Formats: sequence, C-alpha cells, structure tokens
Amino acid sequence: MILALAGGVGGARLARGLAAALAPEALTIIVNTGDDFEHLGLHVSPDIDTVMYTLAGLNNRQQGWGLAGESWAFMSALRRLGGATWFQLGDQDLATHVERTWRLKTQPLSAVTAEFCARLNVRHRVVPMTDDPVRTLVDTDEGRLAFQDYFVRRQSAPRFRAISLAGIEAARPHSALAAALADPALAAIVICPSNPVLSIRPILALPGITELLRRRRAPVVAVSPFIGGQAIKGPAAKIMHELGLPVSPAGLASFYGDLLDGLVIDRADAALAEGLAGPAIMATNTLMRDDADQERLARETLHFASRLHPMRRQPTPDEDIGRTRGLPIRPRPQIHSR
Amino acid sequence: MILALAGGVGGARLARGLAAALAPEALTIIVNTGDDFEHLGLHVSPDIDTVMYTLAGLNNRQQGWGLAGESWAFMSALRRLGGATWFQLGDQDLATHVERTWRLKTQPLSAVTAEFCARLNVRHRVVPMTDDPVRTLVDTDEGRLAFQDYFVRRQSAPRFRAISLAGIEAARPHSALAAALADPALAAIVICPSNPVLSIRPILALPGITELLRRRRAPVVAVSPFIGGQAIKGPAAKIMHELGLPVSPAGLASFYGDLLDGLVIDRADAALAEGLAGPAIMATNTLMRDDADQERLARETLHFASRLHPMRRQPTPDEDIGRTRGLPIRPRPQIHSR
Repeated sequence: MILALAGGVGGARLARGLAAALAPEALTIIVNTGDDFEHLGLHVSPDIDTVMYTLAGLNNRQQGWGLAGESWAFMSALRRLGGATWFQLGDQDLATHVERTWRLKTQPLSAVTAEFCARLNVRHRVVPMTDDPVRTLVDTDEGRLAFQDYFVRRQSAPRFRAISLAGIEAARPHSALAAALADPALAAIVICPSNPVLSIRPILALPGITELLRRRRAPVVAVSPFIGGQAIKGPAAKIMHELGLPVSPAGLASFYGDLLDGLVIDRADAALAEGLAGPAIMATNTLMRDDADQERLARETLHFASRLHPMRRQPTPDEDIGRTRGLPIRPRPQIHSR
Repeated sequence: MILALAGGVGGARLARGLAAALAPEALTIIVNTGDDFEHLGLHVSPDIDTVMYTLAGLNNRQQGWGLAGESWAFMSALRRLGGATWFQLGDQDLATHVERTWRLKTQPLSAVTAEFCARLNVRHRVVPMTDDPVRTLVDTDEGRLAFQDYFVRRQSAPRFRAISLAGIEAARPHSALAAALADPALAAIVICPSNPVLSIRPILALPGITELLRRRRAPVVAVSPFIGGQAIKGPAAKIMHELGLPVSPAGLASFYGDLLDGLVIDRADAALAEGLAGPAIMATNTLMRDDADQERLARETLHFASRLHPMRRQPTPDEDIGRTRGLPIRPRPQIHSR
C-alpha cells in the first residue's frame, strides 16, 4: 500500500503516474484542503479538483488547472453583471463547485469527493486531508492574506513570511490518512512534487500527523518540485527563497527535516546533492510532460522507496516539521541516477 | 405613471412593449416572485429573470425563457457528476443565479434586481412584488407540490385545484408597489398577459393589495393571455379549465372579478365577449411575435386604459379576488376592435 500526499498541479501529475502504476486498492492519495475557500458562496477545493480532474484524464494540460475543453460563458455573463472575476470559473468546472456546495449541506467533503470520483471513473482513492475546515492564511510583508488572495489575486507577489493554518488545531485528519499510516501493509509514503510550504505543510500540520510519521515503519520519499533552481510551476521557488532556504535538494532536505528518508531530484540538480547529508537521493528526469513521464517517474519513485527503510528514532518534544532547519547527520546510502 | 403587474414570458413581452412606449420614470413593473425557489443551493427568480432578460433584449425568443445564445456546458458537467438535471441552467443564466444568491446574503432581492438591471441597461424599473419569501405551492389531485415541481418537473400535468402561497401573510408588498398605487399620477394598472392564477394572483394576494386596488383612482386593464381558447404559452388554459372557468374573456372577467375595468382580448375572441357584463372590452391582435407587436399592443392597451375610469365602490369584507365568481353587473362602455 502506498500513501501519497499531494497538493495541486505537480502533485496531481505524480498521483496520476502512481495510479497508472498501482491497483486502486494499493494507493491512497491524501490531498491538501488548506487552499479551499468560499467564492461567490461556492465551496471551491482547488487541489482536490486538480487531482480529481487529472486522475480522470479531464484536466487541461496546457493550463495546468481546470478542465480540458472548458468554456467561459459564465464568466462573461458574470462580468456583465458586475460580479467578481479575479477567480476564473469555467462552465464545466462550475458544476463541480455548485454541486459540491449543495452536497456539503448534508455530507462531508470526503464523501462528496468519493462520489464525484466514482462518477468520473477515478478508481483510486482521493481523500481530503480532513473533513474539517482548515484555511491557509499567508503572512506576507503586506500583512496576512487569505490563500487565494495571495495566490490568485496577488499572483504570489507579496514577500512570503509564513503560513497560518486557521482551524488546524481542531481539524481531525481524515481517518484514511491515520489508517494508512498505521497500516502494516504500508510500503511507502510519497510526498508529491507540490509546493512544500503551501500544499504539503498543511497536511503534515494536522494534529498527530508529525507524530505518526515519526513512528513510521515505511519510508517517506519526496519528489522535488524544483529543477535547476526553479519550480516547474507556481511560487514554490520564490517562497523557498523568501524563507531563506536554497531552491535545491539541500533546501528541501532542510525544510522536511528528518521526516525524509529519500528525495527524488532532477538530474539537473544531481551535482547540488553531492555529499548532502540526510535523505537518500535518487536523480532522474522529474519533468512530467505526458502520461508516460508520469508513470515512469512514479515507478522509479516506488522502486527507489522499496530500497529504503525509515530511520527509526524517538522524536524530541520541541521538534516540529518546518522549524527544523539543521540537517540531521544520518549516514544513508546515496543512490544517484537510475 | 403606469404600473404593470407581470409574471413570466407573456408578461415580459408586454412589459417590453410598455418600456418601448414609456419613459423610464413613467413605468414600474412589479414582478411575481411566487415561483422563486432554491435549486442546488441557488436562489432562482424565474419571472424576474424573464422580465429582466426580455427588457434587456437578451432573451431567447424561440424558447421563451432564458438567454439567447445560451450554452449548456454546466448542465453536461452536472449530469456527469450525477447532479439534478430536471431544471435547465444555462451557462450565462447561471451567472445571474450565482451572483444573485451571493448578493442576497447582504442585500434584499429588489436591490440586487435593480443593480442587475442597471448592468444590463434596463432603464425601466423592475421590482419584485416583495423582498420577503413567498413560495407558491400548487394543490393538485396528486397532493401539494412546490411550484417548480409542478411546473417544470411534472410539466403541469397533475390536475390543478388551488395555489397556496407560503409566507404571503408575512410578506410586505414592495414599497414601490404601494407607492405606485397611492401615486396621484398613476394613470393605469396593466395586468400583463401572464398566467392569472400562477403569476398574477400571488401579487394580488399580498397583504393590503386587494384593498389598495379597490380604492384605486386609476383603471385596471388586463391583457388576456388566451387566444381562441388556448394559452399562447404555458398551462394557463389547462388551469382555468380545471378551476371550472372558461378559457375566454368571461373566464378572465370572472377570475379577476370587479378588480377589472378593462380587458384587452384577441380579435379571435371578440365574438365570445359580445354582451359580456363587467369590464370594458377591447379586441385587437394580442399575439406578440416581435418588438413591433409588443410596442403596438402596449400602446393600444395604454390608449384603451386612458379612456376608462375605475369603478369606485366600497369593498365588502367577505370579498376576495379569485373567489368572486359572479360577474358584477356594471354598465360599461364596450369598446370593440381598434
């Protein structure tokens, strides 16, 4: 059994690769809900939708988000009425938001997600990290911004300082997440190449998850979202830089701390990882341009993970993921290039 | 000043004709909200939208309801997700429902309507009959049905018995309606050719309106929605029949009772109105196929009204519009054919 943690576009692509490589019962994909928000009274779950649409093969590959063959008659009519147009809602995509908002009156988000996935022939399990509301707030040099204000309206321009996760203390991790982490059959935990700070951190920050991960019996392998000091998509590199972390394997190893047993990086970054203490490293081609790339990277990541064992150690009380900046010195096999 | 009472398609067409004939400040159109409903969590105001779209010149003339050039990507996507598809929501039309629902969290329906009209360049005043919730329930031989269940889902098939107007006792008529009725400058009250039972009755049933109308100083003129024993659109004829009323000028005169000073009928029905006691009659071509028809019928109706005076009499306490079946014997000028 494989547990994948995913956010938006990059995470969705690797999730599709994992789904191509694994049977439905062998994969659980836990998706960030920190960037969920209410827009025009509709509940929008951007990361769930990106993962769901991508696994269904309905995603817009050029754009990265949204549906292929999307139309925009709603947005034109909304503009004509003087409505808010800073967040793009395609005509087809809107059905997801309207129907989800409607069903959320009587069902938890995970149930709605499961039903939508079934209708879209997504056979692997896609699970929101929690059914409780968690809202990522971004602390910037211009003050605290709601996630979509920062990410979409301001195009991630303000200087990033930290995230605050409203509701995180009261949020119960979805039972599928806790169950997967406790499952003796769990073979690996794959952190997909999503934004570490905005997409993965909220999942790790759910109550009890860091603790469960520290007691893991399966290795954690992250796939780097960076190639050559750049993020493939989105503001991840800018944010790492603004956090004082290098946009490199060392930066990711530092960010994830001793949560990481293995790190998959692009060949372009192999030199940067030479002699890096901490996680085992595998360098390969991490750019996912098509289905074949996704499946190949997924299979390589799974194979890499199968050769790792989690470091077992007792957590110290004052440790916390994301605050840990010093790299723990752990002699690990360095696995370069396949 | 002219006050028009309108429901859906037929009412909207005459309202557009009146708007073509009158300056913006000389016309107030009061629209039925009894068939408003919540669908998928969205507030839908079918009659307001039909009037607004028609006055804006955006309506679909073939279909009767909705917007011209509408697309249906939302509905296709909703069907794919297993959502309810019995009520058609076009992609453009949906912007009205989403944005209205959103604004209704902080504004009354009349304010939202006014803002939408301004954005759509509708310069004449379109006012919901009330800002309070009124919901038309249809009592049928199959029991009580919510309006849209009866009208759309069941295609008006069950035998009609009566309407119940949930919320009507507590509903305050919009101040524009009461103000227009009290306005010394009011020259006529035009009942548009909408369904008398489903569209006009809810307006007349608002607290105090029958009383205000009985004290009117301006004549009430209705334009018949029937031609040759048929409704031009919708179930009005079927409902009249099921109420035991003839689908004719006499049936309308009976339904509206002594509320009516004048009745505009189609030439095809002129013979049926011969010798009819009650309202003055004008027979003309009432079928509105295009803008020219609408404006001509509106101007003829206004001219007809200008020659009438309201019958003044004291209401008796047990009288009620719609219950009054006997035709009051009132000697009135019979104005046939223009």
